[in-house]
Formats: sequence, C-alpha cells, structure tokens
Amino acid sequence: MISRKMEDLVKGSSVIRAMFEEGRQMAAKYGEENVFDFSLGNPNVPAPAEVNSAIIDIVNNTDSVRLHGYMSNVGHDEVREAIAESLNGKYGTAYGKANIVMTVGAAGGLNVALKAILNPGDEVIAFAPYFGEYNNYVSNYDGKMVIITPDTETFQPNLAEFEQKITDKTACVIVNSPNNPTGVIYSEETLEKLGKILDEKQKAFGRTIYLITDEPYRELAYDGAEVPWVPDFYSNTIVGYSYSKSLSLPGERIGYLVIPSEADGFEELAAALGVATRILGFVNAPSLMQFVIAKCLDASTDVSYYDRNRNTLYEGLTKLGFSCQKPEGAFYLFMKSPLADEKEFVGMAKKYNILLVPGSTFMCPGYVRIAYCVSYETVKGSLAGFEKLADELGLIRGMK
Amino acid sequence: MISRKMEDLVKGSSVIRAMFEEGRQMAAKYGEENVFDFSLGNPNVPAPAEVNSAIIDIVNNTDSVRLHGYMSNVGHDEVREAIAESLNGKYGTAYGKANIVMTVGAAGGLNVALKAILNPGDEVIAFAPYFGEYNNYVSNYDGKMVIITPDTETFQPNLAEFEQKITDKTACVIVNSPNNPTGVIYSEETLEKLGKILDEKQKAFGRTIYLITDEPYRELAYDGAEVPWVPDFYSNTIVGYSYSKSLSLPGERIGYLVIPSEADGFEELAAALGVATRILGFVNAPSLMQFVIAKCLDASTDVSYYDRNRNTLYEGLTKLGFSCQKPEGAFYLFMKSPLADEKEFVGMAKKYNILLVPGSTFMCPGYVRIAYCVSYETVKGSLAGFEKLADELGLIRGMK
Repeated sequence: MISRKMEDLVKGSSVIRAMFEEGRQMAAKYGEENVFDFSLGNPNVPAPAEVNSAIIDIVNNTDSVRLHGYMSNVGHDEVREAIAESLNGKYGTAYGKANIVMTVGAAGGLNVALKAILNPGDEVIAFAPYFGEYNNYVSNYDGKMVIITPDTETFQPNLAEFEQKITDKTACVIVNSPNNPTGVIYSEETLEKLGKILDEKQKAFGRTIYLITDEPYRELAYDGAEVPWVPDFYSNTIVGYSYSKSLSLPGERIGYLVIPSEADGFEELAAALGVATRILGFVNAPSLMQFVIAKCLDASTDVSYYDRNRNTLYEGLTKLGFSCQKPEGAFYLFMKSPLADEKEFVGMAKKYNILLVPGSTFMCPGYVRIAYCVSYETVKGSLAGFEKLADELGLIRGMK
Repeated sequence: MISRKMEDLVKGSSVIRAMFEEGRQMAAKYGEENVFDFSLGNPNVPAPAEVNSAIIDIVNNTDSVRLHGYMSNVGHDEVREAIAESLNGKYGTAYGKANIVMTVGAAGGLNVALKAILNPGDEVIAFAPYFGEYNNYVSNYDGKMVIITPDTETFQPNLAEFEQKITDKTACVIVNSPNNPTGVIYSEETLEKLGKILDEKQKAFGRTIYLITDEPYRELAYDGAEVPWVPDFYSNTIVGYSYSKSLSLPGERIGYLVIPSEADGFEELAAALGVATRILGFVNAPSLMQFVIAKCLDASTDVSYYDRNRNTLYEGLTKLGFSCQKPEGAFYLFMKSPLADEKEFVGMAKKYNILLVPGSTFMCPGYVRIAYCVSYETVKGSLAGFEKLADELGLIRGMK
C-alpha cells in the first residue's frame, strides 16, 4: 500500500524519534521526574521573553492580510534584509536580501538545497559522526551518501580520507558545526584545509561542489569559543540556519539559507531554491514566525543553562570512569560506550530509565549521544543511574 | 550547477507565482488601486478575529517549551483530537487523533501523502482543469501524471475517460472540490460514480488505489451549496485540508490530512505519513498555529465578502458578453477566453492592468482563471478594463 522506499523507512523509523515516543510513555508510567530522557534535541530552555513579546506586538500591530498572507516563496523582503544586515554585523559580510531564503527550519532548508542541486546518482559526502537524517534527505533526491569515517581522537573531519573520496560525481558536502552529536566545533584550520581541498577538486573535475553547512547550533558555544563563518573559507557554501535551538523554537519550523553572491551560478541557484521551496510543499516559511525572528535578531537563549548541564554531566561521567570528550558547543555529549555494542549499553541504561541514542544512528558505532538540553534536575538525577551502570560494568573511577 | 529537473522548472517557473511578482511590481509602478491582480489565491479577507485572540491567549497561557517545542511528527495529540471531534460533528464520522496528521498546509500534506504512496513510475490521475502544482508534486516522487480531459459543459470530472485510463499502475487519483480553477463542487452523484469505478478497478487490478482529495476550499460554498464528504463515497480516501483559505492563513502553512481507519493498510499508511513529514524536512506543522486552529474550529471566514465579488464579477462579465460558468464554491471564476489562444488574451488584459492566469496552467487551454479573493474595489474597478477588452474583441453584450 505504501511505497517500497517508505516500507523500509517505516520499519527502520527514526531511532531518535522512537525514543522520544518511548520517553513520553515512560514519563507517563514512572513520572516525569524519574525518567532521564536524553534522546531528543528538544531545548528545555524557554524561548527568550522577546519572542512572545514580539508575537503579541506583531499580532496587535500588523494588517492581517499582510501578517498571515502569502509572500514570495523565499520569504518577506524586510525579514530577509534584516537577517542579512545582522549577519553583516557579525561576520563582516555584505549580504542583502537576495542572499537569504527563508525556510521551514534547517531540515526544510537542507531539503530545499538538495532538491535544487542533486541529480539522481550524485554523491554527497558527510563526515561521521553526523545527524542520520542527512541520509534520508539525500535519498529523497536519489543522491548517494558517501561517508567519511570518523577521527575519534578529535572528531574533526578526516580530511585525508575526504580528499580521496571526492569524485566527478560529488555534487556537495554536508558539514555541521558545532556538531551533532559530538559538540565539536570545526576549527578555522580544518575549514581552511577543507576549502582548499574543495577548490582543488573543483578545478580537477571541472565542476561545482557545494558545501552545505548545517548550523542550528551556531549560537551555542562555550568557554568563549568562536564558531567560524564557513563562507569565509569557501565561496560555494550554502549555510543552513534554524532558530530551533538558538531561540528554543524547534516546533515552529523557522530558519533560513544563506547563499553568498560569489557562489557559482548564484542567480540560478537562488531561483532554484525558491522553486524548490514551493514545489516541495513548504510554499514559504511560516509568516508570523518570519516577522517574529526579524524582531529577535539580538535575542539569545540562556547558554549558561546548557553550560551548567554540560559541566555537571561531563564531570560526573568522567568521575564515574566513562570516557567522553568535553563538548565545545551544541548541547550534546558523545560518550564512548563501555560495551563494544553500544546498543547493548543503551539497553542497559534503559533499565535505569536513562534514554540515550546509539552512535550507529550517527554512523559512529561504539558511542552514545547524550542530549543535555534537559532540566538540571534530569542531569543531576541521572548520575545515580550512571553510577549503577558504572558499577555494573566495573568501570574504574576517576580521581577527580 | 543546479539539477537538470530544476533547470526546466526554473525556466518554466510557476506562471501564477511569476504573475504575483509581476503584480507587485505593477502595483509599485501604477499604484495599488490601478492594478487588478486576479492572479493568486491569496485571500484579501482578514483572518477572523478569533485567530489573533487565540494567538495572544495561547502565548500568554502556555508553557514556552510546550508551546514552541517539538511534538510527535504527526502533531499535537490534543489538536488532532479536537479536529477529529469537529469533523465527527460535521460529517457523522467516528475519527480520533489516529486519523489526523497535522501538515504544513495542504501543499505539504499532498507531498507527504504522495511521498508515502508512490513508487517511481506509478501513475497518478487528475481531472483537468486542476491546480498545475500537482504535476510538480507528483514529479517529486517520480510518479507519472495521467490527465483526464475536461468536460467543459459542466466541469464535473469526465468519468467515462477516467474509467478507461485506470491501469494496474494507477496508485492514486487527485480530486479538488470546490475546484480550483472552476469553482465547481463535485456532486454526490459524481463522487458516488467515481467511488464505484475505483472499487471495481481495485478488484480488477488487485491493488489499492488511494483517492487524495485536496480541500482547502471546503468551507467556501455559495447559495447554501453542500460540499460532500468524500470518504463517505470511497474508503481509500485521504483528505488534505488547509486553513489557508477558510481562516485566511495561507502564509502560516497549517493544515491536516485525514485517513479513515477503513483505508487499506491504515496503520502502515499512518506511520508512513509521519515518517514522510519528518524526512521531507517539515518535521512537524508549526506548533503555535496548531494550537491556534484547535481554538478556532468554529471560526469561519466572511464568505459573503467573496460572494459579493462573485456575483458582481459574474454579472459584470456575462453582461459584457464574456462566457463563464457561475462558480459554486472557492473564489475562482473560470472564463472562456474570447481568443483561441488564451495567452494572447491574458496579454491583452495586461494592457488594462488586469492580471489573469491562462487556463493552460490548469491543463485547460482556452480559458482564464480569475481569482476574486481581492477587494471589492478591485472587482468593480476591473470592469472598466474588461469593458474595453470586450469592445476591442467585438463581443456581443448580453441583455442583462
């Protein structure tokens, strides 16, 4: 009854989403406070007060037809202009509204970009570990995913392997920094090398290779870390942004794409992104939320909230003998599984009502992802369960 | 640089959308009041007051994380439940939340449904004239569009040809009533016959054929006309709904799909629709707007506003000698072009700042669509231009 492609997808479904549903059921059964659901990147921090004030202000002061009506598929002119100016202030760029396409979140944006670019059979490169949904997005347009194995020392992209795997079929590369699931920020050095490799390969193969950078976590960086602006390192970059995490609006589906004017085929690409937005059924990003974010460009989420979770979790887990790298950004901690099969470990953790996501979901088995965009009580409360896990597994406690 | 499929689409682009952009430019040049833009189905009626009250009430009284956060991909449980109950009250059905999937408008809903159903090469039948975007939606999933020629006497579907064109490759049929572009409501008699043909063909070919009914205009019916509930006539029906027209919220992208429990493979289909919503990048319908429409289920747009436009336009045009059928619903009037090539007529109309959409956009050349979801002043003001057109073309005036 349903399509063959979809049959497999329904069977496999999303591990993360299945856990989300399971978490809701567990919370109903055991009580919210007794379930430690680290499965989903659903921010627990309320949207900044500016968001709701902006909604009320806009609703009270905007003509209804203008507020709720259609606009160009790429979004409201003044919203795109405001975003461009905000980026110019931050990154010293010279964008205008023509460089911005409003999207239904970053997921919508990535789909629009891939729809615009990919021919069937084209190759798309991503660096493990990465958000597994990229596989589905690429498959939507009959692209072929080419996976670069992880450098588990640093979780920076493995550029040696990358260089080898670029072919004349490579249409684009997807990066994500600060990274889901590792929390690593791709360094300037990494991006410089990556841009150089792409430039060389473009010349060698006589074709354009777009670099799509998925950046919903751009504003979430700790210890004063800077997140480099990727188009500075490579002009054929398409930036995908979302307010899901930076303004705690994941359910509202609002984000944008940036295409630098220097990108190959800029005009054609911009037109294609508009058409793709329309024909994929998005039509346009939600109108009210477009106006809202234009009024909240200087608002920001409470990063210190996540930072406290990060520190407590990282210290707690390493003290218990778990091995993990301290995240520099986003709100994920990628922990080495004490068992070779991390799915077994995920199963063990569930006994203590701790929900983790197996690393294989991110093409990086042997690890688990802990999404710490939860309440501080959840973080603190989970440590007793992690302690029992450490005992059960005979981990050697750290000296901290 | 962009995909081959997209190259053609960018070249062809959407005639309607191109006109929308042209209309905006003309309005800037000649002044809003001197341009008679009938090109886009963008309601000129403000959203009912309940909508903005609901937004403010919800924003003031809902926990931010719940209001703006992720929910299940298919939407908020209580919103789906409320919609199901509202439908049950109207149509005597027995739907629950399991029968409802919240979508990013009807365009999003149709894409989700087609993604769930279509295998490459599957055939999708539509009755001309129909909204040309269906071609793109079907092409997104490598389906093949099979077009049934119009019955220009009644603009009810041509069922004799339909029966002949169903094959073992037919995966679904798309209908749209009240119809864009004709304003015709498919009658009970039509739907009964259509359901019977589909039932027989399902048996003959031993396969499921879904009937997708695109119903953004369901609430817009005139002279007390009733819009039949399609699942009453055929159980393998998927209803696509949108609040774009009924609550004047086209920019907000909010709608839903209904799948009756009796539909073949109900559980699998429901799961597939959730997965399709996620992987196409919608993730979920905008959260705030879900809550809003749940509070506005009894609100309705001012149909009398459109009705006045309809009567004035219909009477004005027929008096001038133009030939058109009086619309029963929606806010479109489908007028016979006085010139064999309706694109030529569209060009002529533009001289008088009247923007019309050629019928070939709806697979029905020789006609033009007039979207009368505009101000009454636009309707009235356009008649002078239409009069000049009638004179120029030597039309014989009616006696009215």
